[in-house]
Amino acid sequence: MSIQRDYRTLVGADPERVFKATLFQSPRLLLGLNCLQPGQRQETHLHAHQDKFYFVLEGQGEIIVGEEVVRAGPGLAVWAPAGAEHGVTNIGVHRLVLLVGISPAPA
Amino acid sequence: MSIQRDYRTLVGADPERVFKATLFQSPRLLLGLNCLQPGQRQETHLHAHQDKFYFVLEGQGEIIVGEEVVRAGPGLAVWAPAGAEHGVTNIGVHRLVLLVGISPAPA
Repeated sequence: MSIQRDYRTLVGADPERVFKATLFQSPRLLLGLNCLQPGQRQETHLHAHQDKFYFVLEGQGEIIVGEEVVRAGPGLAVWAPAGAEHGVTNIGVHRLVLLVGISPAPA
Repeated sequence: MSIQRDYRTLVGADPERVFKATLFQSPRLLLGLNCLQPGQRQETHLHAHQDKFYFVLEGQGEIIVGEEVVRAGPGLAVWAPAGAEHGVTNIGVHRLVLLVGISPAPA
């Protein structure tokens, strides 16, 4: 397995494509990308035993964690602890690209 | 605890400052920032039971993982699995800012 991944290569291949991509995964941690088009939403959900972070790479999102609503742009990290409902909507006019980590990784 | 952190606020307060900052931490995962000045090195070390990733936010680094040497710029993710020696040097002329995750978090 290569130890390096360039997110722009993964996202940039087809800017219209909406996708999830896994960068790296071990039993302890999954590191991946989520890319949402304007208006697209990842419905709220929860992981009972997994912590998750979002880190905005591109675009503007509205991230919900529990009762909190965060307007998130590039450089913002948002934490969704285990058991907290969370979801994200692209509220911008360009794609929203998020680096995401889930620990431990989904089975 | 707030669920949001803006890395630019943390790094930008003093651009000359070299530091590590924790963004979020649970027993499962530590998410943080490392900032190195030009020429500065984080010596190679290893975590026997923790996986680690680097994600370059700013600057140019040389990241070593085991026998591999990666020249890493913004957008590149590098994975250092448990047991692999790893370290990083700022080989650029500006600060090197890395988002880092360690799973499980250091005790």
